[in-house]
Amino acid sequence: MGILGLVKDRRSIRKFKKKTVSKQIVEKILEVGRWAPSGLNNQPWRFMVLAGAEKEALAQFTHYRNIIKGANKVILVFLDKKASYNYEKDLMAIGACIQNMLLSIHSLGLGACWLGEILNQRSRLQKSLKLPGHLQLEAVVALGYPLSSANKGRRRPLRNLLLRKNKLY
Amino acid sequence: MGILGLVKDRRSIRKFKKKTVSKQIVEKILEVGRWAPSGLNNQPWRFMVLAGAEKEALAQFTHYRNIIKGANKVILVFLDKKASYNYEKDLMAIGACIQNMLLSIHSLGLGACWLGEILNQRSRLQKSLKLPGHLQLEAVVALGYPLSSANKGRRRPLRNLLLRKNKLY
Repeated sequence: MGILGLVKDRRSIRKFKKKTVSKQIVEKILEVGRWAPSGLNNQPWRFMVLAGAEKEALAQFTHYRNIIKGANKVILVFLDKKASYNYEKDLMAIGACIQNMLLSIHSLGLGACWLGEILNQRSRLQKSLKLPGHLQLEAVVALGYPLSSANKGRRRPLRNLLLRKNKLY
Repeated sequence: MGILGLVKDRRSIRKFKKKTVSKQIVEKILEVGRWAPSGLNNQPWRFMVLAGAEKEALAQFTHYRNIIKGANKVILVFLDKKASYNYEKDLMAIGACIQNMLLSIHSLGLGACWLGEILNQRSRLQKSLKLPGHLQLEAVVALGYPLSSANKGRRRPLRNLLLRKNKLY
């Protein structure tokens, strides 16, 4: 499957089988994440992987607790402010890093959900993890083997995204 | 090539052949971009593609003018603040969208450079394009057929990105 097929075929997965995602697989996913591009190659992303009781403890910080509980692992993605050079560009780099991981998760036959609502409880969550202040949670990626295939995605047509509606360039 | 290979093999390309990138190819690239994930599926990205004299006119806004001049096309990526629901998450979504495009560019045998320094002249540049204020330039992707293969990339080892150094989870 080419990159367009992989990108279009990937959907958010919110229900998972009780099957374990191996350490080898988790490492593969992080490996793809860390090869994302970043401004001045500053690589501002940091990772924490939680499973079992530590993963369950995250559920209290989001309305989407069932996704966390059902996932086999969660990858927490942080911005390391000590590595930052430009907040806006750092966030885009972290988005690229997360997309790399989502694509690799899908290509490995797993599924994931990019959780953002949990950031509303970021300060409480970070206190519970006893993390230093230069680390800022940016996303939680819940992952596992998908219980069922996802619905078809929807996107605005390209013509509505082009600032010049009547010509490409 | 799998997704890890594609991601690791992709490098910033700064010198290009004088070969034309067809409209069909540009549309393919934008198509992969628009299928990125975004919070609440708000799809905050907007695109403008410039070629020829319009592309050349961008060169004045960046120290990297030679990259703009050498590229066959440039894709300007904007955040549409009217479509925004959370600035931080919108920026990560746009990063995911750009990474999709960079991966598709590489998979098509083309090369690209994600230009960020040009944002220093964002307000001047946007005035010259006569764009309404709700559109905010976030990146310029310069693309074309690569003149030569790029050097090997470098990334921090995974162990230095894990917040728990001695165990994965």
